[in-house]
Amino acid sequence: MPTYHAPVRDIQFVLHDVLDLSTTHPDLDPAFTEAILTEAAKLSEEVLTPLNASGDKQGCRLENGVVRTPDGFQAAFDAMREGGWTALDCAEEYGGQGLPYLLHTAVGEMFVSANMAFNMYQGLTHGAYNAILHHGTDEQKQTYLPKLASCEWTGTMNLTEPHAGTDLGIMRTRAEPQGDDSYRITGTKIFISSGDHDLADNIIHLVLAKAPGGGEGTRGVSLFIVPKLLDGAPNGVTVGKVEEKMGIHGNSTCVMNFDGAKGWLLGGLHKGMKGMFTMMNEARLGVALQGYAVAEPAYQNAVAYARERLQGRAIPSEGKGEADPIIVHPDIRRMLMDQKSFLEGARAFTFWGASLIDKARTDPEAEALVSLLTPVLKGFQTDMGYQCATQAQQVFGGHGYIEETGMSQFVRDARIAMIYEGSNGIQALDLVGRKLGLDGGKPVMAFFEMIKTFCRENDGEDMAGFVQPLKAASKDLQTAAMYFMENMRTPNTALAGSYDFMHMMGHVCLGFMWARMARAALGREGDFYAAKLATGRYYMARQLPATAMHLARIKSGQDPVMALHAEAF
Amino acid sequence: MPTYHAPVRDIQFVLHDVLDLSTTHPDLDPAFTEAILTEAAKLSEEVLTPLNASGDKQGCRLENGVVRTPDGFQAAFDAMREGGWTALDCAEEYGGQGLPYLLHTAVGEMFVSANMAFNMYQGLTHGAYNAILHHGTDEQKQTYLPKLASCEWTGTMNLTEPHAGTDLGIMRTRAEPQGDDSYRITGTKIFISSGDHDLADNIIHLVLAKAPGGGEGTRGVSLFIVPKLLDGAPNGVTVGKVEEKMGIHGNSTCVMNFDGAKGWLLGGLHKGMKGMFTMMNEARLGVALQGYAVAEPAYQNAVAYARERLQGRAIPSEGKGEADPIIVHPDIRRMLMDQKSFLEGARAFTFWGASLIDKARTDPEAEALVSLLTPVLKGFQTDMGYQCATQAQQVFGGHGYIEETGMSQFVRDARIAMIYEGSNGIQALDLVGRKLGLDGGKPVMAFFEMIKTFCRENDGEDMAGFVQPLKAASKDLQTAAMYFMENMRTPNTALAGSYDFMHMMGHVCLGFMWARMARAALGREGDFYAAKLATGRYYMARQLPATAMHLARIKSGQDPVMALHAEAF
Repeated sequence: MPTYHAPVRDIQFVLHDVLDLSTTHPDLDPAFTEAILTEAAKLSEEVLTPLNASGDKQGCRLENGVVRTPDGFQAAFDAMREGGWTALDCAEEYGGQGLPYLLHTAVGEMFVSANMAFNMYQGLTHGAYNAILHHGTDEQKQTYLPKLASCEWTGTMNLTEPHAGTDLGIMRTRAEPQGDDSYRITGTKIFISSGDHDLADNIIHLVLAKAPGGGEGTRGVSLFIVPKLLDGAPNGVTVGKVEEKMGIHGNSTCVMNFDGAKGWLLGGLHKGMKGMFTMMNEARLGVALQGYAVAEPAYQNAVAYARERLQGRAIPSEGKGEADPIIVHPDIRRMLMDQKSFLEGARAFTFWGASLIDKARTDPEAEALVSLLTPVLKGFQTDMGYQCATQAQQVFGGHGYIEETGMSQFVRDARIAMIYEGSNGIQALDLVGRKLGLDGGKPVMAFFEMIKTFCRENDGEDMAGFVQPLKAASKDLQTAAMYFMENMRTPNTALAGSYDFMHMMGHVCLGFMWARMARAALGREGDFYAAKLATGRYYMARQLPATAMHLARIKSGQDPVMALHAEAF
Repeated sequence: MPTYHAPVRDIQFVLHDVLDLSTTHPDLDPAFTEAILTEAAKLSEEVLTPLNASGDKQGCRLENGVVRTPDGFQAAFDAMREGGWTALDCAEEYGGQGLPYLLHTAVGEMFVSANMAFNMYQGLTHGAYNAILHHGTDEQKQTYLPKLASCEWTGTMNLTEPHAGTDLGIMRTRAEPQGDDSYRITGTKIFISSGDHDLADNIIHLVLAKAPGGGEGTRGVSLFIVPKLLDGAPNGVTVGKVEEKMGIHGNSTCVMNFDGAKGWLLGGLHKGMKGMFTMMNEARLGVALQGYAVAEPAYQNAVAYARERLQGRAIPSEGKGEADPIIVHPDIRRMLMDQKSFLEGARAFTFWGASLIDKARTDPEAEALVSLLTPVLKGFQTDMGYQCATQAQQVFGGHGYIEETGMSQFVRDARIAMIYEGSNGIQALDLVGRKLGLDGGKPVMAFFEMIKTFCRENDGEDMAGFVQPLKAASKDLQTAAMYFMENMRTPNTALAGSYDFMHMMGHVCLGFMWARMARAALGREGDFYAAKLATGRYYMARQLPATAMHLARIKSGQDPVMALHAEAF
């Protein structure tokens, strides 16, 4: 069974040496955050990790209309609740601890690494908490927020319908006003994560539906609060089925039927999409986090296996025993370095994104920047995380294909992050179709300027191995953006290149992160910092050359992509 | 449930228009091969495809010491046997039809696409047939070959042990001579595909073991024929367990225990590795075939879904109905074109490899060339096939993650091909560490010369879109080979770059195949040929730029890969 060791020191390095957390928050000094991280590490390693494989094997099952979660989940959920982990960044007036979202993210990494499916029960609840916090009436806040912060109640997001995923404008779920302030909601929603379960006293469904008078498409969509139980009695919300999925078996993915269920408007009438968009940066950052966090334990177990497994000889070899551990072989090293350099870069990128979300509360430029980066975080990191988990499995050879070793689960779990919360193609579309052009392109120009400034300020010999490749990659990215601008009359040019652009930008961001980490590590004593520099150099030398490939693809234009008729496939 | 439509016309195109089969085999004209392919297509579509999802769901189970295959497998296996499909390229004197291996491969593509796990029962048998054909005594041939050709008996290959996979020299299974011509085999083998099942009257295990006097390492290894039953009675071979795997659930992957089982030497004493190597090109080509063939139905179903699923609007859109089919969206097109251009290129590459195996019987240069290409076929195509299956799943969005649609199975099944028959890292090692230097580098120089000649002979305007990118990619590959040569004093330079080299060479080979297919399609009328040209142009424009990235990685040398101490991971 896989093990997990929470990388507290690596997390501390990003929080303090790279992001200077205690400069902006003097009370959150390294000793304070280390205490929090160490406690979260304990819960992750000792309580959540042991339930990961068993939760995958057992899965969730529908019994007499109620979903049963895997053995042990209830006790673990209680432990998480009692430790206050579900409310770290919630407002103090609702029982939270009022800490930055950045700390919620740092701790969340561990929970996801330990047990991704399990952590989704609180993750979705956090999303519902935020939606009500930002759009609810005072009464709604008083009613729901304390219970959601503590996870006595949990939350869900009900968007997708059988025929409507990305395209929410064609949804069919209806909301009929009842004359008082309530509505009756009727329709079927699918792929509802944590849709039903036995971990909480009530489940607060946030449901997108069409109320009369809103017009066509997404303009007609409103958001409703629909509790599973009203004063302890059923409210017309039932589970159609629990899906059998490729992974995240420990989380109940449900078909939810709303049969005239009583609900209340959350936010303005016909303003449902606005309510969704407000939460989107944070929700997508949460999935970006899953992207790399699920690959972290996969990597750790691949390292452990590579140290233990004896096959073949190094060149040259000291030749002890009947064979050398496979970690001596260059191609095994390549796989481990690919993973390590991505994981540490992605951690820095994700934490940077989280710190921008904190900053965005008072700073519109931070808001614009994180809006730009969000599709990159989500799309790039979940693709790479899946690749990394696959690579970690590969290190195990045939043993990786056997479910018993747990390596398959990491791959199967990682797979969903590329799909949900807007599939990665949608992220690329969002990036190129919306975010690049926002506010006349100001955010993306500010992003390029930020990298330029960093490169100028770190022009010394010691940083050359980082600054030169970063400059080159950033230039490729700018060239691609220019190419899209020059071809705006054929919008399919940008759309055909959008996925490559997203990956290019991901590499530029991770290159930037590695340059910042190198800056923080240079001149400091010890193996920890030496390893940071070596890992960063690997990323710059071996991953950043991808930008030129993506640029060449983009510059081949729309024709190769669109030449075939739909009938010719 | 997924459907499968056998691509008979695409297969015919490669056989005849690209490989000119009827020039070398006048009796195998297009009408003849079409008749064979059409029959095989029927079996694949009507009998094997319907058992693919159910076989995955039900899996294999051990009951009272015997493995039970999924419902319907027995009848399907009978149909395959009765149709003569298991012996297409077997010698006529052993009941086969004496057709080229190329035709076995063409038909095999359909069987794998329809049901990869099922087809492994006959696939392993074919390997055992070949081993005995090449290394057996006349008596062994008479005893085993007719039954293996007809699949009345099936075969297995027993190499791996719990502690010894790639490194067979450290195996512990022993063979004790009995004074007559027999041995007693004792040991445990793992990951034995088709190790036990209920489809045949007997199972002929080919087992690697150490007989006394052979010395250390692989020099001490011999190959033995160990039947499950001797004259109908058990022979000390038992199933330890059936593994629970990520995929290919329909095939029984067994732990096999040999407890003094009676066996006979196959080939020379202590020459077991030689026996294995003889069959390796063919066995690895078989896995290379799986690599793309399992992704073919995934692609087909992604296309069907993309035509049906209505979400969003094209730019510009005709605006019928509530939304357009997603096949109009450029990023969906990109995914489908990635798959289509790989699959058709891989088919040509695989068939070319199979035709070289046929030629190699009398032509040492063909033998040398296919030995060079084999690790590329296996390593590159299985990596790309997995990516394609993942992409096909992605087209389905959330529906792709639900087991019910069958898209997950294609991904889970495709995953094994990257691991078994020598993991892809081992393929890269074989390519760079052995094959490049074979015979003073003659085969690789002949390969480059072949491409150069083709480019020279097709220098016209009509082929420019193919020849120019092929030249550039081939030059990158040559530069990488030179770089390895120049750094032979640090062998880890080549080893650290081996995986990138394998992928580069894969792209060059597929680029070469597309150039040859374009040559065959140019100037011919009809949508079929127009689609070939458009698909080929996509591959050249959007995949060949990868070679420059791989070259840059390779030229970063061994330092980035090897800089970290093993303890620093």
